[in-house]
Amino acid sequence: MSPELARPQAVAVIGTGVIGRSWIRVFARAGLETRIWDAEPAQIEAAWAWLKADLKRSRREHGLRKRVIREEREHVTRCETLEQALEGVFWVQESGPENLDAKRALYADLDRLAPPKAVLASSTSTLDMTKITEGLAGASRCVIAHPVNPPHVVPVVEVLGGAHTDPLVVRKSVRFMERVGQVPVLLRKYVPGFLLNRMQAALVREALHLVKEGVTTPEGVDAVVRDGLGLRWALLGPFGVANTNADGGLREYFTRYGPSYEMLSKDLTSEFCLTPELIESMGKSVDAANRRLPRDLQRSWRDDMVVRIRELKTLHPAVEPEEDA
Amino acid sequence: MSPELARPQAVAVIGTGVIGRSWIRVFARAGLETRIWDAEPAQIEAAWAWLKADLKRSRREHGLRKRVIREEREHVTRCETLEQALEGVFWVQESGPENLDAKRALYADLDRLAPPKAVLASSTSTLDMTKITEGLAGASRCVIAHPVNPPHVVPVVEVLGGAHTDPLVVRKSVRFMERVGQVPVLLRKYVPGFLLNRMQAALVREALHLVKEGVTTPEGVDAVVRDGLGLRWALLGPFGVANTNADGGLREYFTRYGPSYEMLSKDLTSEFCLTPELIESMGKSVDAANRRLPRDLQRSWRDDMVVRIRELKTLHPAVEPEEDA
Repeated sequence: MSPELARPQAVAVIGTGVIGRSWIRVFARAGLETRIWDAEPAQIEAAWAWLKADLKRSRREHGLRKRVIREEREHVTRCETLEQALEGVFWVQESGPENLDAKRALYADLDRLAPPKAVLASSTSTLDMTKITEGLAGASRCVIAHPVNPPHVVPVVEVLGGAHTDPLVVRKSVRFMERVGQVPVLLRKYVPGFLLNRMQAALVREALHLVKEGVTTPEGVDAVVRDGLGLRWALLGPFGVANTNADGGLREYFTRYGPSYEMLSKDLTSEFCLTPELIESMGKSVDAANRRLPRDLQRSWRDDMVVRIRELKTLHPAVEPEEDA
Repeated sequence: MSPELARPQAVAVIGTGVIGRSWIRVFARAGLETRIWDAEPAQIEAAWAWLKADLKRSRREHGLRKRVIREEREHVTRCETLEQALEGVFWVQESGPENLDAKRALYADLDRLAPPKAVLASSTSTLDMTKITEGLAGASRCVIAHPVNPPHVVPVVEVLGGAHTDPLVVRKSVRFMERVGQVPVLLRKYVPGFLLNRMQAALVREALHLVKEGVTTPEGVDAVVRDGLGLRWALLGPFGVANTNADGGLREYFTRYGPSYEMLSKDLTSEFCLTPELIESMGKSVDAANRRLPRDLQRSWRDDMVVRIRELKTLHPAVEPEEDA
């Protein structure tokens, strides 16, 4: 019996920093045997300690049951060697350093040691899989699966292949991400920053400009997004919102407001105006706005609340209500 | 006794289209006597019918009590004349047509008929108060209070004066918006699109570009925002998120990622690439993604869910947990 058949449910998390450790939870809670390894043994222990603490947190904040927590923890195996981590896995989630040479060296090892049918998926947010796999024998099984931090809380994963990736591997990756409860989004080609970081950069560039020009404060920007744009976007996305903002839907919306968008578009900044002085003044402003809560608690509050918003969506899906019988 | 002293709690909603009718709920539920008037009498009756239906909806979806609904409805008075609507009010919320000449004519009437101390606030999303009030005797009491649609659901209000607005009126307007439960954001000067529509245009422009270039689909864009960016933004805004995305906070975040943002910034589109063909292909895509729900139900689902997210935030505020006694 081949190792793949013997352990059809094993995955490897390679690199257990902030992103990698969160992937552990995604896979383990989906019932997969999850092997974890990092080039730095101390990182593995740090991830293990984080995992135990985060599971406790899930129990406290979201009522996760003791048995579920125990099962999730029991699905995780700390490995001493890369070989041990990769044995018999069908999926490798790599979250190593964001450096092309380091990635190329790592993918040579992964390709040599992982079972031939295993998919090698990278969490990279910046690199092009075509470049990572240049000259690699197993280039066809390499794919990017770029998560949002932290993936066990925020579900979107950007999925794209390189020039040598087998299209079947890309489709398999999309299905696998759905299977473990993420929301995969397929990119048909590489663009710097993929989708998420490009759209974020577009909004942040304009926001920095508005602060620098003295139109508003950093807290003003945050309030407009937090208590305005973001509330609707978190439910429908920008095109879904456009579709609900005119009786005739998206077509009417963009036909009617297209000219205003175009005019506004010409007035938006094209400069990226970040300076050390602006960073410092924004730092002061954000500190003042958040003085009620230390930063680590801001982060855990954010993640707890994202989970709660997702629970709300599950509880109240956007489907037609059933008629009363 | 002057009318102001006799009725210190009366406001007028002038123009009762989609935005105006939603303002009625903001003021009436805050306990204010709310006079409503529209140049088109049929619009007043339409707003009244909407109000009754929306109150029922609030009862069904959010458990609003019967007594509270009755009180809110009793706070609203339909007026036959502008004079009647303005008598003794201290706040006028104008939501008339977005046309400079029409606004100038309307403000001449409002300024002539409203009590001298009443603030005249416009819901305009595009016009400059300096231009609306050119030559107007009461220019100093005119201010913009631009809401998000619908204001009784989405709380942000952009507040800004014109060149002739008394700074005290601007401050009073910010306080009044807080009093009625909105989230006012002060703009120190006029820029086209204010804050919200500029940031939205920046993101949407890039999103349209990514769809047109075939990098992804409209549903791909929506998923990235809905299940990624938007979830965090709805809680903290973009700078608040930056502050939680590095252990050293916003300063460390922008110092570390500033160069990546700058590089990405150069790669973002500067073209507004909307064409009728793109609109049609996006329309088809959005229709397919939303086939489970008719558009009017998409909109009411969106609004119900925004209310629920706001309730979540009230239930779980971002404050340090109290120590166990």
